Amino acid sequence: MRANVRISRRSTAPTQIERFVPFVWWIRRYTREDLEADVTAGIVTAILLVPQGMAFAILAGLPAQIGLYASILPPIIYALLGTSRTLAVGPVSVAAIMVGYALQGLPEGVDPLQATLTLALLAGTVLLLMGFAGMGLMANFLSHPVLTGFIHAAVVLIILNQLPNLIGISAPTLWNLSSVLDSITQGLSATHGITLLIGVASIALLLFADGLVVKLFIRLGLSQHRAMLISRTAPLMVVILATAAVTTGNLDFVATVGKIPEGIPMPRLELPETVLAIQLLPAAILIGLVGYVESVSVAITLANRRRQQIDTNQELFALGAANLAGGMAGGMPVAGGFSRTMVNFVAGARTQLAAIITAALVAAVALFFTPLLEHLPKASLAAIIIVAVLKLIDPAAIFKICRYDRIDGTVLAITALGVFIDIEAGLAVGIALSLISFVLRAARPHVAIMGRIPGSEHFRNVNRHNVETWPQLLFLRVDENLTFANAALLESLVNHKLATMSDIHHVILVLSRVNAIDSTALEVLERLSESGRDGGVTIHLSDVSGPVMDRLERSQLISLIAPGQVFLSAHEAAEALAK
Amino acid sequence: MRANVRISRRSTAPTQIERFVPFVWWIRRYTREDLEADVTAGIVTAILLVPQGMAFAILAGLPAQIGLYASILPPIIYALLGTSRTLAVGPVSVAAIMVGYALQGLPEGVDPLQATLTLALLAGTVLLLMGFAGMGLMANFLSHPVLTGFIHAAVVLIILNQLPNLIGISAPTLWNLSSVLDSITQGLSATHGITLLIGVASIALLLFADGLVVKLFIRLGLSQHRAMLISRTAPLMVVILATAAVTTGNLDFVATVGKIPEGIPMPRLELPETVLAIQLLPAAILIGLVGYVESVSVAITLANRRRQQIDTNQELFALGAANLAGGMAGGMPVAGGFSRTMVNFVAGARTQLAAIITAALVAAVALFFTPLLEHLPKASLAAIIIVAVLKLIDPAAIFKICRYDRIDGTVLAITALGVFIDIEAGLAVGIALSLISFVLRAARPHVAIMGRIPGSEHFRNVNRHNVETWPQLLFLRVDENLTFANAALLESLVNHKLATMSDIHHVILVLSRVNAIDSTALEVLERLSESGRDGGVTIHLSDVSGPVMDRLERSQLISLIAPGQVFLSAHEAAEALAK
Repeated sequence: MRANVRISRRSTAPTQIERFVPFVWWIRRYTREDLEADVTAGIVTAILLVPQGMAFAILAGLPAQIGLYASILPPIIYALLGTSRTLAVGPVSVAAIMVGYALQGLPEGVDPLQATLTLALLAGTVLLLMGFAGMGLMANFLSHPVLTGFIHAAVVLIILNQLPNLIGISAPTLWNLSSVLDSITQGLSATHGITLLIGVASIALLLFADGLVVKLFIRLGLSQHRAMLISRTAPLMVVILATAAVTTGNLDFVATVGKIPEGIPMPRLELPETVLAIQLLPAAILIGLVGYVESVSVAITLANRRRQQIDTNQELFALGAANLAGGMAGGMPVAGGFSRTMVNFVAGARTQLAAIITAALVAAVALFFTPLLEHLPKASLAAIIIVAVLKLIDPAAIFKICRYDRIDGTVLAITALGVFIDIEAGLAVGIALSLISFVLRAARPHVAIMGRIPGSEHFRNVNRHNVETWPQLLFLRVDENLTFANAALLESLVNHKLATMSDIHHVILVLSRVNAIDSTALEVLERLSESGRDGGVTIHLSDVSGPVMDRLERSQLISLIAPGQVFLSAHEAAEALAK
Repeated sequence: MRANVRISRRSTAPTQIERFVPFVWWIRRYTREDLEADVTAGIVTAILLVPQGMAFAILAGLPAQIGLYASILPPIIYALLGTSRTLAVGPVSVAAIMVGYALQGLPEGVDPLQATLTLALLAGTVLLLMGFAGMGLMANFLSHPVLTGFIHAAVVLIILNQLPNLIGISAPTLWNLSSVLDSITQGLSATHGITLLIGVASIALLLFADGLVVKLFIRLGLSQHRAMLISRTAPLMVVILATAAVTTGNLDFVATVGKIPEGIPMPRLELPETVLAIQLLPAAILIGLVGYVESVSVAITLANRRRQQIDTNQELFALGAANLAGGMAGGMPVAGGFSRTMVNFVAGARTQLAAIITAALVAAVALFFTPLLEHLPKASLAAIIIVAVLKLIDPAAIFKICRYDRIDGTVLAITALGVFIDIEAGLAVGIALSLISFVLRAARPHVAIMGRIPGSEHFRNVNRHNVETWPQLLFLRVDENLTFANAALLESLVNHKLATMSDIHHVILVLSRVNAIDSTALEVLERLSESGRDGGVTIHLSDVSGPVMDRLERSQLISLIAPGQVFLSAHEAAEALAK
């Protein structure tokens, strides 16, 4: 019996360990087919991750190997702790540009490598703390419009930033629109023909791999899946062809990645300097938040397709630990990237074992093959970055938000413009606007004066329905929580009605659409009922929801509105008061 | 006929001029009794305003006469434009401490007088701009808990700040708790006996005037109103007695106000320096906002008692213009103070003519009687400040907020603590927390799974009522607007239900308590219905309110959820889907 119960429990609910290390749950149920799928996906993703990792490190203004180090330990940690089976964690474009921006703002004399490790450690710590606080569902302070505006502006900045590498001119790393444009227009005349050719050819190969090449292979008789898998080796082809071109053609004048040290640094925890940590904290919070929200949103989308579940709070732990690992292993802040995760998913990844295989391959490259990467042209890496971020562009999403909601559209636009001026400040302003938009939305609620549909118990808006009303009764329904955002409006509205409709002796506030009353609104209700009493007007409440009533009972409002009463429904109020 | 119509219009609705200059409306209906009441109140308030004006200027670290100049033109401007009949506008304690704080933070070499005028001009401009933007009802970004926390902390700081003046030690003007406490404990041994005596006697006289003195006069046969009016001359008594003591007793060692120039500066507009204006803008915004919210809240409370109305937007114009006038007339930022307005109201003021009379009396003092004020001890002014701010203390309000709402209580506490550390930053943090509290409140909504009360069309929470349910239908009601604050929660909840209750084929989201859906939530609804479709689950909506439906029709959601439908009610959904 006992054993039986145990087995049935294991098959339905995860154990303590399985809950904290979801990887164990998957491995215990692992099949041979799973392994085949994961190995294929792991290899395909590694082919993309090696050049992307280096490219994103260069995007952040760091040596290329930092991106490789961030692609080994962090994804392994995420693989063990994460709840997404397919999320591909590692360096991502948006986090990279934010790191680059933060490094640029540092005072002279600070080691950028040290600062990068500090950023990763801090971002990881912030996410872990949020995990302990159970804030998995609340990281949505980064709303959809803010994230959309931010990412699109970041994509523009990233592409502009990589243009110099693509066209073979040298330009300082710059992070705002006008200075980037300046440096490009100034350098345009120095465009280097061969470099530009390599860059454009790389972009073409990467872009066409998705469409034309797949079609070609299918026509050659390959299955769609095979054709797709082969087309995914395009980044490897770009790396090989571009390196070969530079080496065999003796194109020394083309800017390349340069010497990369062999080996992988041993993980070690160096506590960051306090002054540096305080300076970098705001940037680290934003990097952690953006990375988390982007990762979880990709993870949920893909999990939904296979009816799997994402535990958002466990994701805070997993991504937090992955970033800590990045900071300890000599890497940079990491997240689950959109484009690489899609490649991993489409290549058939079934569990995070795919990610571990990917990480092992990257480790092998870092240990043994870095000399081969020395002559890889920066233009090809720029091409890989540009193609990756192009996939983040979604004009339909922008259009949809703007058409659906004017406030959200404004938040999106201001965030994007802000990011062009200053990445961090733009994002911070966007978050602040999201919060303010909440108040704005609640500030002008829909308010209805109500009457009874004759012969029924139903009350409806007098402007929309033929209803009966009573001269001495005013039924007022506010379609919004009563809070500091609209308490003054409510007070002014009631006072105005009382001043203009002098027959009224009873005001019934119908709270059927009110889910909360804050203390500012409570104060106003008290003041209304006090001043009403002086003028021979009684304030009543009706349709108070359970949770709101529980709360009101903790205040003295119920006794303060006496002789005003709390009615179950507007109908009950009418029956009692319309004599 | 024509004349008749005109008269009847005039008696019911204000003309254009009367709407913009409410004073005209009052004066056209002015009676002899009104005049008597206003003259009395005007004199009584002037007796309080002269010493208070000087005291608040000294509190801000400015020469005493600045407070007088701010008590002449600004209240006259407010009298013409304001909609409150009794609000007493002029220097107020809370604005004064904020000015002092802002002046303290200025770089060396900036003239504090110049900076004060700039603050008044900027605060006035900010309020006027808010007025033009129609933000009268939205200045409530300063919620009740923030304002309560701020004012109580400010009162503590003000009292501590005046203690040195009261006990006769010299101390620099300091605005945070630890440095004020430091300077007091260091100076305590130097306490000056005679000064302390004057200070304590002043406080005693002012405090007892309200209670004991009134009772005494009534026992002597005066009417309550008369007794109260006489007791209101206490500030004048304090000024006369203390000055007399210093002069006749040759107490040269007691710190006094010192020489005040005779006359009133001519109003003139000097545009502030750009650099200074930018530095002072945050402080000016906060000073303007706090002053506005405090003024309007006092004005509404008193207007309600007499069934009069306050037009909050017109108040923005009136207080904005009053502050501009303060900046032009050599004064300081002004607002409608609580204690002085109460005195004005209780003394019987019927219109703002009382305020004009008060201003005329202050002007007379500034023109002719300043030599008499030269020997007024600072200790007495400190007493007047302390007694004024004591009236702002309301422990019951704090207790009520904390007991009613944990979030609001936390906002109050953090605001107060923040103000002790840094006045402006504390207030700014409080405002930010108010906004965040909005999101927090919406982040964990009450969610009910619903079933039908047998034999009825009513749907209720399955946990609270005996209801019928259907294994293939899930009725889910979320008691909160669907926004970025809770969209992730909704998604995770639905996914969890679908994963654990595998019979479900239809999810009906009952939106009867949803007043808005933002674009983040829209995105989640789309994703839910898309992933549901893959898993054989259809998402439906019911009880969608008119405004929400209008909005949804602008999006593609309705077509995206197909074959999901929009039902008028949960009952209708059950009839259609429970086969």
